[in-house]
Amino acid sequence: MEEMPRQLIDAARQGSERALARLISHVEDRRPGWKDAMKAMYPHTGRACVIGITGSPGAGKSTLVSEIALRLATSGLTIGIVAVDPSSPFSGGALLGDRVRMRGISAASGVFIRSMATRGVLGGLCQAAKDVVRIMDFARKDVILIETVGVGQDEIEVVGAADHVMLVTFPGGGDGIQAIKAGVMEIADLFVVNKADRGGADETASEIAAMLELSSEGQAGKPPVFTVSALNGDGLTDLTAALRGYINRKKAGPVLEQAHVRREILGILEREVTCLIRERVASNGNMEACIARIMAGTSDPYTAADEIIALFAPASRIKGGMP
Amino acid sequence: MEEMPRQLIDAARQGSERALARLISHVEDRRPGWKDAMKAMYPHTGRACVIGITGSPGAGKSTLVSEIALRLATSGLTIGIVAVDPSSPFSGGALLGDRVRMRGISAASGVFIRSMATRGVLGGLCQAAKDVVRIMDFARKDVILIETVGVGQDEIEVVGAADHVMLVTFPGGGDGIQAIKAGVMEIADLFVVNKADRGGADETASEIAAMLELSSEGQAGKPPVFTVSALNGDGLTDLTAALRGYINRKKAGPVLEQAHVRREILGILEREVTCLIRERVASNGNMEACIARIMAGTSDPYTAADEIIALFAPASRIKGGMP
Repeated sequence: MEEMPRQLIDAARQGSERALARLISHVEDRRPGWKDAMKAMYPHTGRACVIGITGSPGAGKSTLVSEIALRLATSGLTIGIVAVDPSSPFSGGALLGDRVRMRGISAASGVFIRSMATRGVLGGLCQAAKDVVRIMDFARKDVILIETVGVGQDEIEVVGAADHVMLVTFPGGGDGIQAIKAGVMEIADLFVVNKADRGGADETASEIAAMLELSSEGQAGKPPVFTVSALNGDGLTDLTAALRGYINRKKAGPVLEQAHVRREILGILEREVTCLIRERVASNGNMEACIARIMAGTSDPYTAADEIIALFAPASRIKGGMP
Repeated sequence: MEEMPRQLIDAARQGSERALARLISHVEDRRPGWKDAMKAMYPHTGRACVIGITGSPGAGKSTLVSEIALRLATSGLTIGIVAVDPSSPFSGGALLGDRVRMRGISAASGVFIRSMATRGVLGGLCQAAKDVVRIMDFARKDVILIETVGVGQDEIEVVGAADHVMLVTFPGGGDGIQAIKAGVMEIADLFVVNKADRGGADETASEIAAMLELSSEGQAGKPPVFTVSALNGDGLTDLTAALRGYINRKKAGPVLEQAHVRREILGILEREVTCLIRERVASNGNMEACIARIMAGTSDPYTAADEIIALFAPASRIKGGMP
């Protein structure tokens, strides 16, 4: 029995966590009506402050995100957490140990958690995660925290779509620093050295500050570096205060940026077309014929791709003559 | 002045590293004739043994890859290295410190290095990296090592397309292990604990072996775990011998798998269509009109995507009636 998205939508907007969870699944699985649901929700979104959290595996992001969420929730804000888990695309089962620990806070008022496995997400993680954020936004979450486990290109894109990006690392000689190098330094608004309880955190924080000094030369304002321990709570008050600053600014005046809208359209477009291709390719025999020719040595994958594209869009449409 | 790809192709095949570098750039930038070049090269490929190397940032992968490449080259094999650098998509400049160190081996006979920034790669890193691998394969490299810096979904896909996957970590309490959890465990054929010179490596190797014991229950054969120091050379002889085993097996009988061909066609297809969309969207005013309507509150990105798709493939073509 499939509930009508309309009812789900209304219930999610009114605060039902069960409806919110089902609505997300509905859209994630692209079940009938998912796109109309997104269209209906869109005008009521754009109010939530979205904070992306990334960093090297082992930096204790899950614990930190839980602590931050609890503190913000205590001050009366409603919180959504999107936890992006890179399960393998090749075999079953995400390793959700951290998530289980984090789930402990689900009972706390105002914190809603959604895990997303990257495996099996049709047409790309990035757009799928953005859809989930938008639905939580619609469901009146004041703050949405997106946590990624890895630090790959996809993860950078995911957090890059947030209003603010927090980069989490941990004390560990050059390793923590090197983790930072891996492509996220430039998009971070906020640096956090977690696991300060271990010692060496101040040194790591200084190294980061020095790197920021170098890379932000001539720019106005460097991102702040916080030293915290999610385990014993040290430094969390200052960090949470900084986040609250972001949240208040967003509340004061949500801004719709043209570049952001453009990226969102392109993201949806690419995901749609990818899904379309996979469906179409699966439902006709052309792919099998192409593979057979390649295995026989009479064709190649580039020619095959050309042939399949020609079925979708005849050459005349591709080469020119757009209205 | 643009050389004709044909000349580049012949020269690359005959061993010119300069021609190989230019050919790769030609294809990467999708300059005129790039696709014909790929089609022409394809029948002469499939012979190289492709080894993907991934793992947590800070594991010393670059140094390890250099050392392995040098040892294999010394034994008379020709080596290509594809180093995938996740530079930020948002601002200039990859942080190529490691690459500079690695470049030291470029002068050594038979080792060719190509760095790929992920920023600005049209239509996805994964297919772009596969193109580079295929060109190196055509240029008679016996072994191609693909190294990724991050451990994200994209990187997993990149190394997942290799014949074999080596996962590199380092001693560091639970952190090294946690890095492994992040989605690559299932695709690795070979585990390496680097930085054995630091101590604690045997413990980490045991932890990995224990995890493999758990996850491979009932399966034939567990992936081996090597403990090495790329810095002082410990353990590298054994590791290189294992890789040589892979290389000899590939040489004995290259196999073209149907599933692999299918993935390659889909990869090319998706990249082509993504590029097509970006070009078309850039060249007509529809996108701007859509953005304006969304900013005015009279449309939404999902509707805009639908409208743009309809321009490419009329509804009648999308909904059904494929030949």
